[in-house]
Amino acid sequence: MDTTRAHAEALDRVDPLGSFRDRFVIPDPGVVYLDGNSLGRLPRATAERLTRVVGDEWGGELIGAWDHWLDLPVRLGDRLATTLLGAQPGEVIVADSTTVNFFRLATAALDARPDRRAIVTDRANFPTDRYVLEGLAASRGVEIRWLDTAADGGPEPGDVAKALDEDVALVTLCHVDYRSAAIADMEAITALAHDAGALILWDCCHSLGAIPVELDGSGADLAVGCTYKYLNAGPGAPAFLFIRRELQGRLRNPIQGWFGQRDQFAMGPTFDARAGIEGWLVGTPSVLSLVGVEMGIAVAAEAGIAEIRRKGVALTVYAVELFDAWLESEGFVLGSPRDSRRRGSHVTVRRADARALAGELIAAGVVPDFRAPDGLRLGLSPLTTRFVDVWDGLDRLRELAR
Amino acid sequence: MDTTRAHAEALDRVDPLGSFRDRFVIPDPGVVYLDGNSLGRLPRATAERLTRVVGDEWGGELIGAWDHWLDLPVRLGDRLATTLLGAQPGEVIVADSTTVNFFRLATAALDARPDRRAIVTDRANFPTDRYVLEGLAASRGVEIRWLDTAADGGPEPGDVAKALDEDVALVTLCHVDYRSAAIADMEAITALAHDAGALILWDCCHSLGAIPVELDGSGADLAVGCTYKYLNAGPGAPAFLFIRRELQGRLRNPIQGWFGQRDQFAMGPTFDARAGIEGWLVGTPSVLSLVGVEMGIAVAAEAGIAEIRRKGVALTVYAVELFDAWLESEGFVLGSPRDSRRRGSHVTVRRADARALAGELIAAGVVPDFRAPDGLRLGLSPLTTRFVDVWDGLDRLRELAR
Repeated sequence: MDTTRAHAEALDRVDPLGSFRDRFVIPDPGVVYLDGNSLGRLPRATAERLTRVVGDEWGGELIGAWDHWLDLPVRLGDRLATTLLGAQPGEVIVADSTTVNFFRLATAALDARPDRRAIVTDRANFPTDRYVLEGLAASRGVEIRWLDTAADGGPEPGDVAKALDEDVALVTLCHVDYRSAAIADMEAITALAHDAGALILWDCCHSLGAIPVELDGSGADLAVGCTYKYLNAGPGAPAFLFIRRELQGRLRNPIQGWFGQRDQFAMGPTFDARAGIEGWLVGTPSVLSLVGVEMGIAVAAEAGIAEIRRKGVALTVYAVELFDAWLESEGFVLGSPRDSRRRGSHVTVRRADARALAGELIAAGVVPDFRAPDGLRLGLSPLTTRFVDVWDGLDRLRELAR
Repeated sequence: MDTTRAHAEALDRVDPLGSFRDRFVIPDPGVVYLDGNSLGRLPRATAERLTRVVGDEWGGELIGAWDHWLDLPVRLGDRLATTLLGAQPGEVIVADSTTVNFFRLATAALDARPDRRAIVTDRANFPTDRYVLEGLAASRGVEIRWLDTAADGGPEPGDVAKALDEDVALVTLCHVDYRSAAIADMEAITALAHDAGALILWDCCHSLGAIPVELDGSGADLAVGCTYKYLNAGPGAPAFLFIRRELQGRLRNPIQGWFGQRDQFAMGPTFDARAGIEGWLVGTPSVLSLVGVEMGIAVAAEAGIAEIRRKGVALTVYAVELFDAWLESEGFVLGSPRDSRRRGSHVTVRRADARALAGELIAAGVVPDFRAPDGLRLGLSPLTTRFVDVWDGLDRLRELAR
């Protein structure tokens, strides 16, 4: 392969999504930001829109502005559903945090299978999901069956199948592994869970906005995911919650709040859940944080998830080629799948001194994530990362690692 | 009394807090906004600070900005505790919605009294609290004992006492009634709950930023409250959650998330709760919405809760005087306590056609809240409401009501 910087520049020149980087604030062009999968960059349009929503709507219209805001969690959910999640309008809302939504859906799934006493999940699952499950298992006397996924892979259908039987109420896994970027086979694993009579809950934090998610097409029951990574919605922006339409009438929201109440402002004496996904709203939504979601969806939808995925693959393929040329000989191990079809939009490279290297990289103007115990996670967010960023980042890592 | 507008102007001229109104955006000086208890006005400093946090911190520092943000829920909680809630640092966080926090604390209280099977609350309690309790009662097989508080009052210690026995796990009430503005006797009712061996959870949505809340002084166990009313923190800004220090080691957060995990970024295999109130954090906090809380606290703390309360009393006393002079003869009934010591910072006036009148008032440039079935709720937010606003609002109501 051509490992010159000129080649990276050439790849950027023909990149159909190259101009999208201009939609984002790039504070210091000298810094190589490879952490858009932890906190996505600020879209310029978001800064402008927030100023308007704060000044004109909150400041100017005051309580009357709720006319615009009241259905924002549902409206944004519908947009997410149809542009990025492969779902229908009426299956998704945007509200609360990933953790709160994960808790609610996991609880509802266990409630829906009261005779079953087991949850199947993965030791490689993102910590907040594992911690919620631990809490639920302790309070309800339910068993967790842990899969032991390889550090550079993701959960395999065969391993899930072995853990399944008629006592499993819920299977819950990450669609894209937060360390390895391995993509789980959502369709195959969902089918296995259904064959065993279990419900399945997918965590799409590391897939939303990076790779196509086919919630309806795969038959998924439940899903959550955060918006502040590849969707660039801003720090702590609300998460999405998905429930397959046919299931909605059969699950109960464990946190019954006034935004989930039919005829909310009648403030009636008993809870009467809104039909459909609206019944899963809880408290007053964080309007300012939702504005970031609105703008993040807009820019991703304009680019199109197929194009985003195409570029994401090209970026990680290029990163793996440079890894092979430069880093393997320095004692690094690739912590991500080699097959680009099985890999999301980040690449993890592993070496025992990764923690120290992460600090040195940051000092040298390259921002990765360190993931214990030995991973450098390089997030190649398709809308904002150039091929020269990949080259510069790996070039500096190669120098530091010698 | 002097019912001339000149008198209202004179009251404004000597108001020590009069200048605070200039800290807020007043989009149309001709509109009389009496709904600062539903959505508080926009502090000018908030608009400026948000622009900086979005542009300089998110846009400019990217992932590094989490150094500023990570402890924001705790830092703002400490500020709220000491300036407005009569609590100590380490007893309050700001995160999630009132409803989610209410759910968590009510669940923890029931878990802490596993042999007790009853909750005492009030039919006049704010809907979202009632709906959460209904859900918990149904899923746990717990009984709700409903108090029937008078429409113009609040829960009385005598009524609470009658509902209490050794089967009550939790008493939960609003500190200030959202319709009548009646202030519950937090100290007396808390003592009664404790005498019966129950825990108590106070909803302070309509007291935070309007009247002094003495959580530690009253011995309160648990409390929640929203920040977008009198605290002017913005639409859907995160709520606070309070747990008395001595109780913290004895209660379990039912939603165990990664922000509540000791050594969060080690992402360890099992949940190990952070000591103290930090263990009650859940998911990634909504940073942009927290900025509004930060600025809302700052302006309220600068004014001082004692001065805010003094002005709030003066405003509602004045409103009741005008009610007596103008509205009682038109068939209105006062829906709030006559004793200003028992009244928060809003006044409700009742007449059968209140819903229609609310619409006519808004068309006439006066913004109240309608509260079913027959209440016009006039929010007199002390930092932003003038005596002439009270005069103008009631004067227009008097004309429309004839």
